[in-house]
Amino acid sequence: MSTAPSVSNSITVRLEVPASGTAVSQLTTAVEASGGSVTGLDVTASGHEKLRIDVTVAATSTGHADEIVEKIRGIEGVSIGKVSDRTFLMHLGGKIEMRSKHPIRSRDDLSMVYTPGVARVCTQIAQNPEDARRLTIKRNTVAVVTDGSAVLGLGNIGPMAALPVMEGKAALFKTFAGIDAWPLCLDTQDTDAIVEIVKAVAPGFAGINLEDISAPRCFEIEARLREALDIPVFHDDQHGTAIVVLAALTNGLRVVGKKIEDVRVVMSGAGAAGTAILKLLMAAGLRHAVVADIHGVVHSGRADLVDADPGSALCWIADNTNPEGFTGTLKQAVRGADVFIGVSAPNVIDGDDVAAMADDAIVFALANPDPEVEPAVARRTAAVVATGRSDFPNQINNVLVFPGVFRGLLDAQSRTVDTGMMLAAARALADVVHEDELNANYIVPSVFNDKVAGAVATAVREAARAAGAGAA
Amino acid sequence: MSTAPSVSNSITVRLEVPASGTAVSQLTTAVEASGGSVTGLDVTASGHEKLRIDVTVAATSTGHADEIVEKIRGIEGVSIGKVSDRTFLMHLGGKIEMRSKHPIRSRDDLSMVYTPGVARVCTQIAQNPEDARRLTIKRNTVAVVTDGSAVLGLGNIGPMAALPVMEGKAALFKTFAGIDAWPLCLDTQDTDAIVEIVKAVAPGFAGINLEDISAPRCFEIEARLREALDIPVFHDDQHGTAIVVLAALTNGLRVVGKKIEDVRVVMSGAGAAGTAILKLLMAAGLRHAVVADIHGVVHSGRADLVDADPGSALCWIADNTNPEGFTGTLKQAVRGADVFIGVSAPNVIDGDDVAAMADDAIVFALANPDPEVEPAVARRTAAVVATGRSDFPNQINNVLVFPGVFRGLLDAQSRTVDTGMMLAAARALADVVHEDELNANYIVPSVFNDKVAGAVATAVREAARAAGAGAA
Repeated sequence: MSTAPSVSNSITVRLEVPASGTAVSQLTTAVEASGGSVTGLDVTASGHEKLRIDVTVAATSTGHADEIVEKIRGIEGVSIGKVSDRTFLMHLGGKIEMRSKHPIRSRDDLSMVYTPGVARVCTQIAQNPEDARRLTIKRNTVAVVTDGSAVLGLGNIGPMAALPVMEGKAALFKTFAGIDAWPLCLDTQDTDAIVEIVKAVAPGFAGINLEDISAPRCFEIEARLREALDIPVFHDDQHGTAIVVLAALTNGLRVVGKKIEDVRVVMSGAGAAGTAILKLLMAAGLRHAVVADIHGVVHSGRADLVDADPGSALCWIADNTNPEGFTGTLKQAVRGADVFIGVSAPNVIDGDDVAAMADDAIVFALANPDPEVEPAVARRTAAVVATGRSDFPNQINNVLVFPGVFRGLLDAQSRTVDTGMMLAAARALADVVHEDELNANYIVPSVFNDKVAGAVATAVREAARAAGAGAA
Repeated sequence: MSTAPSVSNSITVRLEVPASGTAVSQLTTAVEASGGSVTGLDVTASGHEKLRIDVTVAATSTGHADEIVEKIRGIEGVSIGKVSDRTFLMHLGGKIEMRSKHPIRSRDDLSMVYTPGVARVCTQIAQNPEDARRLTIKRNTVAVVTDGSAVLGLGNIGPMAALPVMEGKAALFKTFAGIDAWPLCLDTQDTDAIVEIVKAVAPGFAGINLEDISAPRCFEIEARLREALDIPVFHDDQHGTAIVVLAALTNGLRVVGKKIEDVRVVMSGAGAAGTAILKLLMAAGLRHAVVADIHGVVHSGRADLVDADPGSALCWIADNTNPEGFTGTLKQAVRGADVFIGVSAPNVIDGDDVAAMADDAIVFALANPDPEVEPAVARRTAAVVATGRSDFPNQINNVLVFPGVFRGLLDAQSRTVDTGMMLAAARALADVVHEDELNANYIVPSVFNDKVAGAVATAVREAARAAGAGAA
């Protein structure tokens, strides 16, 4: 559904055209006629006969980019050289690096950074383990851990193919919160093995960011690691998403003048994100929730739940939502609801369903890249609409949360991350939008709003200290 | 035995002295009278009455530094403020960091570095796993893995106390070879667990540097990982040391005009380093070797070896050295030997033992910080002496080897590291010392010689390619 040309599908075409004539102007025309958009045109060499030009073009997809190149090739006198994909160019050789903080230029430097001087530092930590946070990278370092089982919308593509996402995540940690994160892409999808591995690598890190691990394994992995480790463990797909959704809902409800205690929320999706959102919204006061998954609305009498593990996330949902025992379809459940939250699949509801919601309805259609309902369609009757996409207002983006959350946890030297800290993060994020800025098209700040990470970090740090979760 | 003041035991003392009088000159006198050395004196504030001064002093140990401070405190009119340890200051907050290679300033940047653009890169790697070396950090990234069981001369201090060493190692990897290394300090000393963990984290790395893992576990861990992984696994304490020793011995033998095939080598120490040195020297042509450990000279009739695991390193040594079945002591074995190599403990031989060696004897006394024989004593009769210490000529230092070895392996995209590559590394390192530079006090280049890493890398890269170990 993403039909606008995007820089993420952007190519640079190196070509030669005759110096005279209309070839250059035909270039732009050809690109635009093909639905592309020229975002840059640099003449890199010029002579009496020929011009060498780099044209950068945004397309809607890789196939579309290929079509545009063929259109350009059809212009008389044009010869095409190298075609580079701008996104691939940025990933070439990887997106992060390790650096030494100190130059090592002399024997003296070496004797302090490494042997023999380092031995005194090691001895100090062996005698006082808490000094590791003072004398090593531990205090500012987070492991970004994945098994590649649920990467973006791509699914189970494995650890090596997941690495570009984890590098990107690490780059965002540094850019937005000054945190040193390093990716660990694990070549196993065995729950026990993942728990053992993360426990074993923990001494060198002050926090664990679990990423793109599929449900239900992610619940058990996180729970066991939180139990075992003295550093916070945070599955961003769950809690990062939950915090942004709560912040957005807080402001959405402000816009329509409703209270979380009073609204009925219908959620589509009972996976990792859905479950975490539900729990956090309930911790914030939500009382009326109905959840639907691919098998329909969740209720305790549903055939697949009668024999299900009572400790499973789905059983928790059945026990804690849908008090009226509603057994209809998602579309039926949505009728009269105040809030729809989708973390599931494209087009599970339509404009008529949204129109059947309560007055001043709020719709968060977060499936990516294609939402549960077209936002433009939802907006016809809903008061507030948010998506995961960057080409509509109100983008629900975890980048608003995880850098600040970890910054706060690290600054507090927190041993845990709990619901109180997550509620504080959501409140702080919501409050970055001032009363006089707040409206239906601005319920969350931009990811480039430079107040966001600091506000979230401060709130989390204070909540961690208040909870006594930090080091003495 | 390290009695010279060293910058690695260096403190900065902030103090106030009367502006008039002799207090300032008494400062220097007091430090020197205490055996310290003033390496810096900065007046940071000056008034009519008082001067504030930062004095930096090199001491021989932490206790010595404390004594010097007390001596300064005794000077009339001096009041002492903060005393900082320069080595600790360099370690504060850790010595390495992670950086994003690209600024992320706009929505466009974000859409290429992270979602949605990153999805195309992930898909590319999922379809063509070999593209991970092109499109991720993998190709230039090495894991520095330890369990903290044999750290420097400090022993089993555990993973967190080992972290300063691993950070230092990572900093050296970057400084000398442009490699992005990240420390993984494992909270387990179980061989099976370590093997499983390193196998699992391998997708994100192009090489594994094992570090400070105690023998005999290090042998099994390395062997199993080499078998399991398609990236090179290199235990630096073994092979890094072996390569420098072979290079140094190659040049030492050039100095005295002997051939490796003809000499008798007596080695003290049968641990990880000793075993690796022995194997590499034998691969380079050594035929006559005798090894002693803490129980005496190794021979197949020795009581503790009769029932030993035939696959153990010690049994390998018994089977492959000491063909004459010599059963005496280390001191007896050294008589008439051409070469002594110590990787064991302080003062196991003395000047008389060295004097009883063959003419033009070579002595490598590598125990740190206190060598097997005082180098100054050994030098009275031996032709060539080397140690692990930086305050004597001919320092045997792994920094000469591991950066270049990994640079070469990474550049060749090597799946393994083998004896041929290690021999090539040693040869290249030896050859950095030109014929007209070579003498008894210069058998290895300085660690700051900027030709070293490149020469070693080129040799290893070519050996890896010749062995067909690199990617297609």
